[in-house]
Amino acid sequence: MTTLTVHDNGKYIAIQTQGKSTRFHAIWLRDNAWDSATRAVGNGQRLLALRDIPADTSIASAVIEGDIVTLTFAPEAKTVDYPLAWLMDNAYDTAASTGTGWTGSAVKTWDSGLMADVPVGDFAKVSTDDHALSGWLANVARYGFAKLENGPVTDMALMKVVDLFGYVRETNYGRHFEVRTEVNPTNLAFTGLGLQAHTDNPYRDPVPSLQVLYCLESSAAGGENMVVDGFRAAERLREENQDWFDVLSQYCARFEYAGEDDVILRSRRPMIELSPDGELVGIRFNNRSLAAVTDVPFDKMDSYYAAYRRLGEIIDDPDMEVTFRLNPGESFVVDNTRVLHARKAYSGAGTRWFQGCYADKDGLLSKLAGLQARTLEAAE
Amino acid sequence: MTTLTVHDNGKYIAIQTQGKSTRFHAIWLRDNAWDSATRAVGNGQRLLALRDIPADTSIASAVIEGDIVTLTFAPEAKTVDYPLAWLMDNAYDTAASTGTGWTGSAVKTWDSGLMADVPVGDFAKVSTDDHALSGWLANVARYGFAKLENGPVTDMALMKVVDLFGYVRETNYGRHFEVRTEVNPTNLAFTGLGLQAHTDNPYRDPVPSLQVLYCLESSAAGGENMVVDGFRAAERLREENQDWFDVLSQYCARFEYAGEDDVILRSRRPMIELSPDGELVGIRFNNRSLAAVTDVPFDKMDSYYAAYRRLGEIIDDPDMEVTFRLNPGESFVVDNTRVLHARKAYSGAGTRWFQGCYADKDGLLSKLAGLQARTLEAAE
Repeated sequence: MTTLTVHDNGKYIAIQTQGKSTRFHAIWLRDNAWDSATRAVGNGQRLLALRDIPADTSIASAVIEGDIVTLTFAPEAKTVDYPLAWLMDNAYDTAASTGTGWTGSAVKTWDSGLMADVPVGDFAKVSTDDHALSGWLANVARYGFAKLENGPVTDMALMKVVDLFGYVRETNYGRHFEVRTEVNPTNLAFTGLGLQAHTDNPYRDPVPSLQVLYCLESSAAGGENMVVDGFRAAERLREENQDWFDVLSQYCARFEYAGEDDVILRSRRPMIELSPDGELVGIRFNNRSLAAVTDVPFDKMDSYYAAYRRLGEIIDDPDMEVTFRLNPGESFVVDNTRVLHARKAYSGAGTRWFQGCYADKDGLLSKLAGLQARTLEAAE
Repeated sequence: MTTLTVHDNGKYIAIQTQGKSTRFHAIWLRDNAWDSATRAVGNGQRLLALRDIPADTSIASAVIEGDIVTLTFAPEAKTVDYPLAWLMDNAYDTAASTGTGWTGSAVKTWDSGLMADVPVGDFAKVSTDDHALSGWLANVARYGFAKLENGPVTDMALMKVVDLFGYVRETNYGRHFEVRTEVNPTNLAFTGLGLQAHTDNPYRDPVPSLQVLYCLESSAAGGENMVVDGFRAAERLREENQDWFDVLSQYCARFEYAGEDDVILRSRRPMIELSPDGELVGIRFNNRSLAAVTDVPFDKMDSYYAAYRRLGEIIDDPDMEVTFRLNPGESFVVDNTRVLHARKAYSGAGTRWFQGCYADKDGLLSKLAGLQARTLEAAE
């Protein structure tokens, strides 16, 4: 049984349903009305600003009938219906703060155990079957990376991968970049050296939130790709030493890249980025482009360096890494705000040719949400 | 006179110069060495990870001679020179926290007083003269917007504006978008209604950090452009009521746009975004796309809505707005993480045709830094 009561002269209501009680403020309910004078039919954009809603809005009357809650607001004398299910889905009267370093339910952190079950899609399937595409994109959202196999071995095939979910983020490196051994490279990524696991372009703000790496040739020895879940690494650091987690999240690092003529990229952001309510939202880790850290007070700097060192050790721990070799026509997408990637050293013998590009998560998550909504509609 | 002393068994040094004393840790100094074994010549990328530097690094000896500080590190027995000026520029032994809502020295907040001195560039000059371009870009960095006049009145001329400093951020709206009156528009931006000042696309993460709006036709009555400094608005809110500033910065809002088929963009970010050490780094304000706010606890929701209302009132205050009319060939660039823009209502009579696109600040700030570095070199 569901009951509804009005409290505090109509300032809020309480709904008791299925053994739970939850409260909603009058002003919140009014602002979130879905009638056609409040929200545009079709795209749901709000037609009112808060200035159009009286500050002393209260609930004059409230009725629940079946699945519909009907409220009349004073002083507007405006009556609005709300689906009970929508209200319960958007209830905010819950226990506060879950501490620092939590992740949402859509995220699953991982370590080397994921080697047995690397998320992977088939190029032809995800290109033609929405269900396969949705599953593959959901893996990128959940794990922060996914492989794609059996793609074409053609120049710029990586653009077909981006077309599956979004748009290229063009930068001074171009719409895409070539990764081959080079003589006298301007960026270490283009040498045969092994690289410590890192996130790309932390010196850029906003950072490119996705990277695609596509293999076209791979006959050189070595050069395996490796990924590490930066969120899991941050969780481990927090479990080991909360102070170290805090110092890396509460102070900004600085990153810089000043390569070619006229390119001087700089950022000031923390290595572990949290939302204001403590959600893990980003990892920046890149020894090559870390600039002098000058925003940590003297009496915290020892602790900062100890924490940075330990985070690096966790990232280097083989128990954290998932390694795979990409063959021609294979690629992977990585969430560059979360998952670090690395390359094992490779020799100059044979060839190794990858193409890479950046993109952004907004497009990928929108595509995924759209596919999931369509599936839901079809199921109803 | 400059003196240098070694403390705590070589764990840190102190430098006294020009009446100031500042300390540097051994591990920080070692990590920031600029010798060719530590940093790549040319692009300065660090060749070592922290794992390559002993955790018990200390300073075995320290000498200052003229402008050069020479340090020998144990246990590596490695000697490195540092320019004294570089050390002083990167000193971190300063008073901690400056509270919440501060802005860096490169940012100047403003209100309607800026009407008398709207930052503006001449298209031909900034296209051909680095000094003019540097000045115009510096204004975007400082004020969060700048006009550009006397540009070509040709389709897609806005791309020439983007070419001055960076790269288009392509989204589901395309590489650019047309802004004209439309019948049955899918987005309110394409109607003749006036719009409350807002930032664009807060439902996108990462948000596009720059927007370019370029006027090609403008014979309709009204339709002036207006900008408001969101950083100044946040400062005013903080001055009036610290609790209200805090509630908008400490809790996440949610934004959503679900327009066309398959597009469902969602974000969870605060209206006032701070770096972990309190710097103002972003404003998201858009009544049209604010979704149900569900991350504010019940006992804070009243305060949240009061704060959101007051921030809107400040933004609507004519004392805050800078208004200008764009004529054909005129455009403006706005920092979409800081400055809100609005359009006054216009009538259907006559025509109004703008083209817009998104871009990112990393490119603009890099271009600016590059031009400034070149000027500095030329002056030396």
